Amino acid sequence: MSAPAVDFWYEFASTYSYLAAERIEGAARVAGVTVRWRPFLLGPIFAAQGWATSPFNLYPAKGTNMWRDMQRQAAKYLLLWNKPTVLPRNGLHAARVALIGAEDGWIANFSRAVFRANFVEDRDIGDPAVVADIVQRLCLPASVLERATSPENKARLKTQTEDAIARGIYGAPAFTVDDELFWGHDRLDQALEWAKAPWL
Amino acid sequence: MSAPAVDFWYEFASTYSYLAAERIEGAARVAGVTVRWRPFLLGPIFAAQGWATSPFNLYPAKGTNMWRDMQRQAAKYLLLWNKPTVLPRNGLHAARVALIGAEDGWIANFSRAVFRANFVEDRDIGDPAVVADIVQRLCLPASVLERATSPENKARLKTQTEDAIARGIYGAPAFTVDDELFWGHDRLDQALEWAKAPWL
Repeated sequence: MSAPAVDFWYEFASTYSYLAAERIEGAARVAGVTVRWRPFLLGPIFAAQGWATSPFNLYPAKGTNMWRDMQRQAAKYLLLWNKPTVLPRNGLHAARVALIGAEDGWIANFSRAVFRANFVEDRDIGDPAVVADIVQRLCLPASVLERATSPENKARLKTQTEDAIARGIYGAPAFTVDDELFWGHDRLDQALEWAKAPWL
Repeated sequence: MSAPAVDFWYEFASTYSYLAAERIEGAARVAGVTVRWRPFLLGPIFAAQGWATSPFNLYPAKGTNMWRDMQRQAAKYLLLWNKPTVLPRNGLHAARVALIGAEDGWIANFSRAVFRANFVEDRDIGDPAVVADIVQRLCLPASVLERATSPENKARLKTQTEDAIARGIYGAPAFTVDDELFWGHDRLDQALEWAKAPWL
């Protein structure tokens, strides 16, 4: 039997993905589960549903509740939180860099740094200069930025987003254990439980 | 200081409202919190957003995940569950009867029975005969059905739905503690905690 593992699907523009990114490694370590970080893009998925922006912008009551809920959740989990001045921010470039991190082994650190830039420091993570600064602060070589924009790596992110869609993912964060899909930060703990012992 | 209380907003067509209806009284008793059962209608709220049916029908990937999630959740909470053949069912008549139950003190029992008819027995709760049967099985007088359809009671349900909208409610179930809104069965426990001691 292989060690229990969960795939963590996230989008850098997504508020609840931030909560999951901060919490998942600690929770997974306690549970004895390995995490595979899998960034993808929500933009194409939302566009296919006819949405030009986040549902939190399209449906104001839903948005109002989300902002308040994020305050409460961040306080509960002792996480830093500042409402960003822009939602959603463009996570494309950062997601490409993250994929290089998946190859090299620094994807978790880099991803948390991007989420904090967006949701704590209110920086524009869609700006390549901001991503370059994060790379530098993490003492990663600038060459990762070039590798991120290679045609092969761009194709890799596209494929990963298509893989997400094929698995039935329609929002972020999501967690998969083989073919079992869990949607939302609220299912993080259940996904880890399932990885150890499915109950259905 | 008044005893901690939570308002429980639900719609009989809503799958996650069923989970909350089954669990809330037990969880509230443990927490020492009083529950006010407040049925309302999602139809007018969805219609105002341009939705003619449930978002679980409008967005198939979201629907697929919900049906699987309900199986997992029901198993986790040891609740009976059968996927209904129709979603959403019309909860209008049942909600009107429930309001009479709020007056008379049997709203929780009646509401759970309606949810079970929909989500365990796969019965059409939109059919007045099914609601009449539930009333009879609970040994309530048939007169409650007449009282339910009085102009005053119809207006009461309309007012309750307007009250829900005014509080920012856009889905079911929801929980409110004074002006604090919690959305979704996943926030049931947080709403009870908040009723005792807000953390923000």
